Parts: sequence; structure tokens; C-alpha cells
Amino acid sequence: MADLWQDAMDHAVAIARKAGAVIRDHLQGEMTVMCKSSPADLVTMTDQKVEELIMASIMEKFPTHSLIGEESVSAGQPCILTDNPTWIIDPLDGTTNFIHRFPFVAVSIGFAVNKELEFGVVYSCIEDKMYTGKRGKGAFCNGKRLQVSGQTDIKQSLIITELGSSRDPEVVRHIFSSMQKILCIPVHGMRCAGSAAINMCLVAGGAAEAYYEIGIHCWDISAGAVIVSEAGGVLMDVEGGPLDLMSRRVVAANSRNVAERIVKEIEAFPAERDDASEAGSA
Amino acid sequence: MADLWQDAMDHAVAIARKAGAVIRDHLQGEMTVMCKSSPADLVTMTDQKVEELIMASIMEKFPTHSLIGEESVSAGQPCILTDNPTWIIDPLDGTTNFIHRFPFVAVSIGFAVNKELEFGVVYSCIEDKMYTGKRGKGAFCNGKRLQVSGQTDIKQSLIITELGSSRDPEVVRHIFSSMQKILCIPVHGMRCAGSAAINMCLVAGGAAEAYYEIGIHCWDISAGAVIVSEAGGVLMDVEGGPLDLMSRRVVAANSRNVAERIVKEIEAFPAERDDASEAGSA
Repeated sequence: MADLWQDAMDHAVAIARKAGAVIRDHLQGEMTVMCKSSPADLVTMTDQKVEELIMASIMEKFPTHSLIGEESVSAGQPCILTDNPTWIIDPLDGTTNFIHRFPFVAVSIGFAVNKELEFGVVYSCIEDKMYTGKRGKGAFCNGKRLQVSGQTDIKQSLIITELGSSRDPEVVRHIFSSMQKILCIPVHGMRCAGSAAINMCLVAGGAAEAYYEIGIHCWDISAGAVIVSEAGGVLMDVEGGPLDLMSRRVVAANSRNVAERIVKEIEAFPAERDDASEAGSA
Repeated sequence: MADLWQDAMDHAVAIARKAGAVIRDHLQGEMTVMCKSSPADLVTMTDQKVEELIMASIMEKFPTHSLIGEESVSAGQPCILTDNPTWIIDPLDGTTNFIHRFPFVAVSIGFAVNKELEFGVVYSCIEDKMYTGKRGKGAFCNGKRLQVSGQTDIKQSLIITELGSSRDPEVVRHIFSSMQKILCIPVHGMRCAGSAAINMCLVAGGAAEAYYEIGIHCWDISAGAVIVSEAGGVLMDVEGGPLDLMSRRVVAANSRNVAERIVKEIEAFPAERDDASEAGSA
């Protein structure tokens, strides 16, 4: 059992590092920015090129495995998690940061078997930080063990969230209302770094007590979910049930106490599921 | 004229680097956290120790100069900018980040003569990035010239702000209302990194088009103001007039166009001035 899926994980680390180098390279050049679901839901040729690179490499080495990738789903591929070994890929998490060269950009690769996450790899490629987590084996950053913060008093906590890419007035109203209520618990502060995957790694490393968001996708959080839980943290839905990878909602925290306190303040709203039948056009 | 105040600037760089090393060192140890004006306005022994170190070093080398430092003002020293050469010091900008080991923490040293800023030094000590700006001489990060973003379309801009340390319901309401209006212009996104000085350096380096905040202090923004303007950016008040260092309000942007568009959406509110007679107890 010790090395189960270790070859796949080693491959994920190698390909994430290679993809990160391509992203760093493209940071220097001109960018063509395209919109997806809203004027703030952006994609570049780099997202697409890096996803192709990662997918080709996995398909060559693990031809029987399944793949879910942000750009493939955007292009109409299904987003269904089966029992087959499945790679869940965000080639470039933090695309808006990438476009602006804001220094938090990551490659995120999660891996699930029988619908259970086995490992996650997040490569923060501007910082050159390789985060990894493997079920039952702990979480690491550049080889150093990660441990969530021991702070369980919400009033002494730092919370991360994001404003998201929707500009629908009702969605925006819910997002700000939740933030305002959490800020006034009160907490020490709130941060928005612009990458879900890196936000989760910051929680795993103890730099913040929690991260929550509604509107993210399975490829943003699959890898981070393993890293947070292997660093001693907890994951749940924004209404307090178990995390549902396809629900587009997440709370990742250092402790059940902090997670449950945040859940009380979040104005939850439904987001169209990643695995809805119309997922291909989401 | 070429080398006017160069000796002072060289000293600022050297002492900022030394102070940053102390901060990095203290990141490893236990911290005693104390509150100032609110449960979220925090200070540690490190803030105080590092300010003493910086001030002692400046007083020894430039005994006729004046000093304004965050912790000295908190302890009751006046916060008045005169015509005398004056060092404006934040020993540890991003104290909440420091407490949580969130990776944006800086030493900020501004220098003014005849009430005009001559240079600014911001050392982002976890990232090991030394930002400098000198009037008429440009702005640099680790020796590389900084240039603001060329993006003047607000709808393609990334904006930085902070939620601040006040938990006064009226202040919080204004802060969220401004953010919501700016987000829905719409802009590409908004970020909160937790350090005013680093936020300004991110604008100077082109990673975001603008940063604005109400509630900051002169020591948070003096150094960053030189760095932004020397990188080609603009500074103004949140109501559109010229920046007033003591007003606790700032807009720093890549262009007049972006700054003025943001100003239209900000719900300005007055903050007690840094140089109010009761500044010592602020």
C-alpha cells in the first residue's frame, strides 16, 4: 500500500514543474486575453497550451486514466467524476493574476480513485513553491512538512476569500454580505490573493486559519483539498455538510471550530454544479 | 544635485535590510500580540524592537534629523511634518500578516525635506525584495527598474485595497460599499494583500493598476508614494485632490485615468488626521 499511486504522483510533480516553467516563460511576453462566462472570467492562450501539455503527458503515461481539465470542460468536454482513476487539472489557477503578473499563479493537479482524492500537487510557479499532499502521508512545501495553524479562536483568525468572477448583482451582494459579517465577528483580517489553490496551501501552511468561496470549480480545489486535510485541516461545504467537490463551494480551515464559525456567517447561495448536464457550456 | 541625500538613502537601504533580517528571525519564534485602537489593530514586541533599532541607527548617523515612527507616535510622540529632514518609518508594515506569517511583510522608510518626499525604501522581507525610489531618479526592485502598468482601461484593471483594522459598523459599511461599486464597474478583480507599502510597490511594478485605502497612516505610504510616482504612477486623495500624507487617505494608480475612475466610486469618509493635536493617542 505504501507506494500506491506514487508513480502517478511523481509524474504530477514533474509535469507541474514543467508547466510552471512554461507559465513563467509566458509571463514575459504579450498576452491575448479572452472572456468566458463574464467580463471578469478570463482565459489566455497559456491556459490552453499548458493544459494540452499536461494532458498529453498524462495520456501518454497513463492511457487508461480519465481527465477533467478546466479548458477542456470549457470547450465542451464532460466534467463527471467516475470510479476510474481521474486527474483533475487546473493548468493555470489565478488567470487574472497571471494576466496582471500579480505574483500568485499556480498549476493544480488533483487525483481521485473511486471518487476519493488520493493526492494533490499545487505548484506556485512565481514563488517556486511545490506543495504536495498524499492521502495518509502528510503535506509538504518544497519538502518541508506543512501543518495548519493551531489558532482556534475565530477572533484571532485571518480569513481568505475571493470576490470571484461573477458580476451578477445578486451574487455580488451575497459575497460582500458574507465578507462583512465575517469581518465583524470580528476577525483579525481578511485577504484575497487571487488563486484558490494557493489560498488552500496558505491555510495548509498556517498562514491563514481559513479560506472559503462559492463559485470555484473542482479543478481549483481538488489538489488543495488533499494538501489541507493532510496538513491537519478540515474541509466542509459552506452550509456545514461534507465537502462536495462538484458543488462549487468550499470551506477549508485549520479546525472544525473555525470552519463552523465561518459557516454561520456565510450567506450561501447555489452555484450551477460542475457535473450538471450542461457543464460543457458552464 | 545628483547625489543629494544619497548618503541618507544608502543608510535607509542598509538599515531596512538589517531590520528585515530581524523580522524574518522573529517569524520563527513565539509572538506576544497586543491591541491598539481596536481588536484588529495589532502590535507585537517585534514592531517596537525594530523601530528602536532603526531610530537609534538614524539618530546616530543623522543627529539633526527628525523622526516619525509608528510605534513612537502610538507611545505619545508627535506626528508633525516640519521643513527639517524627516524620516517617516513603519518598522513592520503588515503586522497582522506578520502575526499569521502571511507572506507580505515590509519595512517602510520614507524621507522628506521641506515637506517634500525625497526617497522611499520598502523592503518586503519574506520575499527578499528591496524596492527603492528617489525623486527624479526612478524606482527599482532589487536593482531592476520599475514601471507601472500601461493598462488605462478601468474595465481591464486589477485593483488592490484593504478592509482595514476598524470594526466600527459605519466605517465597515463605507469600505464594503466602495469595494462593491468598484468591483461592478466592472474591473478584472480586487486583491487584499495586507500591507499598504507592498500594495503600492505592486502598483509600481505593474502587477495591479491601482491601490486605494482610507485609514492608513503617513508611515504606511510615504516610501511607497515615491516608488509609485518614480515608476510613472500618480497619487491622489480619495476625493480627487492632491495626496495629503497626513490625511490617512490614498489612491495610488498607474494613470490619472484609472485613479479618477476609482475616485468616482469611493465613498469617502474622514479619518482623524495623523497630525491632529491628539495624534499621540490615535
